[in-house]
Amino acid sequence: MDIEFWFEFASTYSYPAAMRIEALAEARDVNIVWRPFLLGPIFQAQGWNDSPFNVYPVMGRYMWRDLERVCAARGIPLQRPSDFPRNGLLAARVACRYATAPWLPDFVRAVYQANFSQDRDIADPAVLASCLASSDEDPALILAEAQSAPAKAQLRAQTEAAVARGIFGAPSFLVGEELFWGNDRLEQALAWATPSASSTTSV
Amino acid sequence: MDIEFWFEFASTYSYPAAMRIEALAEARDVNIVWRPFLLGPIFQAQGWNDSPFNVYPVMGRYMWRDLERVCAARGIPLQRPSDFPRNGLLAARVACRYATAPWLPDFVRAVYQANFSQDRDIADPAVLASCLASSDEDPALILAEAQSAPAKAQLRAQTEAAVARGIFGAPSFLVGEELFWGNDRLEQALAWATPSASSTTSV
Repeated sequence: MDIEFWFEFASTYSYPAAMRIEALAEARDVNIVWRPFLLGPIFQAQGWNDSPFNVYPVMGRYMWRDLERVCAARGIPLQRPSDFPRNGLLAARVACRYATAPWLPDFVRAVYQANFSQDRDIADPAVLASCLASSDEDPALILAEAQSAPAKAQLRAQTEAAVARGIFGAPSFLVGEELFWGNDRLEQALAWATPSASSTTSV
Repeated sequence: MDIEFWFEFASTYSYPAAMRIEALAEARDVNIVWRPFLLGPIFQAQGWNDSPFNVYPVMGRYMWRDLERVCAARGIPLQRPSDFPRNGLLAARVACRYATAPWLPDFVRAVYQANFSQDRDIADPAVLASCLASSDEDPALILAEAQSAPAKAQLRAQTEAAVARGIFGAPSFLVGEELFWGNDRLEQALAWATPSASSTTSV
């Protein structure tokens, strides 16, 4: 079965999930469907004009410490971004438009590393161009295409599809219509996608 | 070291944590400090007059499904309460007043089972009296003492202490001042309390 990986480039817990998913899915022979979307419109519909980690600063303080522990345990470098949440709109348009490109997983990881381990501004086209190093296409052409009307419409539709399927946060994983939310649930979602092997996996 | 277990009787994910913590802590030779508190005042300070799972129904729908999976994986019976969140005030006053009583862990589990596997009203003193079966004291005396002015003040102070220590949800675990939030983090919190053994524990 497939696992759909729904992610948002500004989302903190999407970072360890993005860094881990390819190796874990490969080990289980599960195909990843990459589904970038935007949390902004979803949060706005709940009355938040900012990340809930900023709206609720006590929760935010906890999240940063917890993320430190999560990343340390996985050997994933983390540097708290000086600006949070960063604007991942252009990066999401690229990832949505080129979701099946062979270089897409490298691009996704590079953008997350830029944001969460290099403290770079992922809204800056020059930063995104450097994240496209794995592609043999011209970054300028990719970025232009990502800002075309069809590409913009594609990301809007994908965000609407996220809402329609019950997604309210990131990262989320869908296996069929079974929804899993959070980096913590990645292993469980993969087990769900491989029922024959799931008896050996604790959830 | 000690682990402080901060729980609220209406909290869904506190249920599997409460059912699991004693055996896990015993296996690691960690002492549990039982810390009941109330989420209501904490949620109200954030502008919620109800459980966030009711305020945000999309998140609530997910939570119930996720809780089903969590409990099924642990062999913990779950019946979705017909009323949520139930009023755990009196139960919390009992647990706070008698936090070090030898029957306290049994009482805590019995109240959670009443709420989450038997669909009983834990605000009802008769239900709580039945949850006190492990005590050799008179349930009527315990319930009366729990409603005394000092007992009420004790729970209020404990809820204020939760806020002061950065707690915003339940279950929470404190090991020293290191905070862990969620049933998912129980194993990690216990590993934190036993540093010499933690290298064998994935987090």
